[in-house]
Amino acid sequence: MSPPATTPPRRADARRNVAAILDAAQECLIRDPEATVAQIAQAAGVGRVTLYGHFATRTELVDAVFERVTAQADTMLAATDVSGDPMAALARLVTANWQVVHRFRAVLAAAERELPPARVRGHNDRHLRRLTALLARGRAEGAFRTDLPEQWLATTAYTLMHAAAHECAAGRLDPVGAGVALTATLTAAFAPPPPPGAPGGHGT
Amino acid sequence: MSPPATTPPRRADARRNVAAILDAAQECLIRDPEATVAQIAQAAGVGRVTLYGHFATRTELVDAVFERVTAQADTMLAATDVSGDPMAALARLVTANWQVVHRFRAVLAAAERELPPARVRGHNDRHLRRLTALLARGRAEGAFRTDLPEQWLATTAYTLMHAAAHECAAGRLDPVGAGVALTATLTAAFAPPPPPGAPGGHGT
Repeated sequence: MSPPATTPPRRADARRNVAAILDAAQECLIRDPEATVAQIAQAAGVGRVTLYGHFATRTELVDAVFERVTAQADTMLAATDVSGDPMAALARLVTANWQVVHRFRAVLAAAERELPPARVRGHNDRHLRRLTALLARGRAEGAFRTDLPEQWLATTAYTLMHAAAHECAAGRLDPVGAGVALTATLTAAFAPPPPPGAPGGHGT
Repeated sequence: MSPPATTPPRRADARRNVAAILDAAQECLIRDPEATVAQIAQAAGVGRVTLYGHFATRTELVDAVFERVTAQADTMLAATDVSGDPMAALARLVTANWQVVHRFRAVLAAAERELPPARVRGHNDRHLRRLTALLARGRAEGAFRTDLPEQWLATTAYTLMHAAAHECAAGRLDPVGAGVALTATLTAAFAPPPPPGAPGGHGT
């Protein structure tokens, strides 16, 4: 059934306002995790009273933006093909994950400051599971090294992604270069080591 | 010339007290970066008045411990042979660096909280220079990859060392396993990539 065409104009206005506020809040928080409610209202083209009518506190607003950004991130990651050759799948997943980290890092920083840790952790855990599932499959198939704990490989991936975001923020890497560096570093770090004595092996 | 044997007993006592305070402060700060002056005085077996007679503030005391720890770290790192095959030298330098990070991380955390950033940065920069010098030599000799920025390789090494310390603190890695994981990860990540199409090459 389609919604009734007779929605009162005030409810349609309210929906438009909420959408405008969320769009503005997302853009403002991406630029500055400490963006104020007043700045967000101004960017959305609504009064502060209107904004507070929809989101009683800055925390409520940050939570709503975090929810939306999380959904967008999940969509981007769910669209990533993690089947087939594990090493090629790793490269695709790292690239997609890097785009998420790079794009939404500031929103995540705002969320970490303002929301309960468990709320943010739930989101990170979901993304981490995608990687750990691929790590487990790749290790079982002999495509990834098994001489180091799986948890360490996952830590390596996430730590380097956040380091890359930091390097970009400091102007020492550009986002495209960072994606290349991450993929190259992680595929090399996760490959099974050559046997000692083999060409390229460093059996120290 | 040996020092005069007639040093007044009170000056010898004072020297012993300072040494005991610094020993106790280092051990206390390694266990807990937030250790109080009262805890340190107790561990040193001196009164708080005596401690404050030597170190007017907690900051002065942390600075003195940081100075001592830095000298110990420099000694450990300076004793590391970074000559010869760059990949083997990297493994030795990473192992030594990891021992420093693991052993002195809590003191560093206390220093970062209490001392001017430039003071702590000077110390980190000195250690970083040892690694970047080895990276530059290894890249020139073809032992390390040159397809990624040198700065990124240095970031990778330091980021993973601190991640390993975090994993140890969380009980997910033991210090020996962390040293092995760091060396294995970094030597793999820094090796020149195989040409695309070569066995083990993943030209994604």
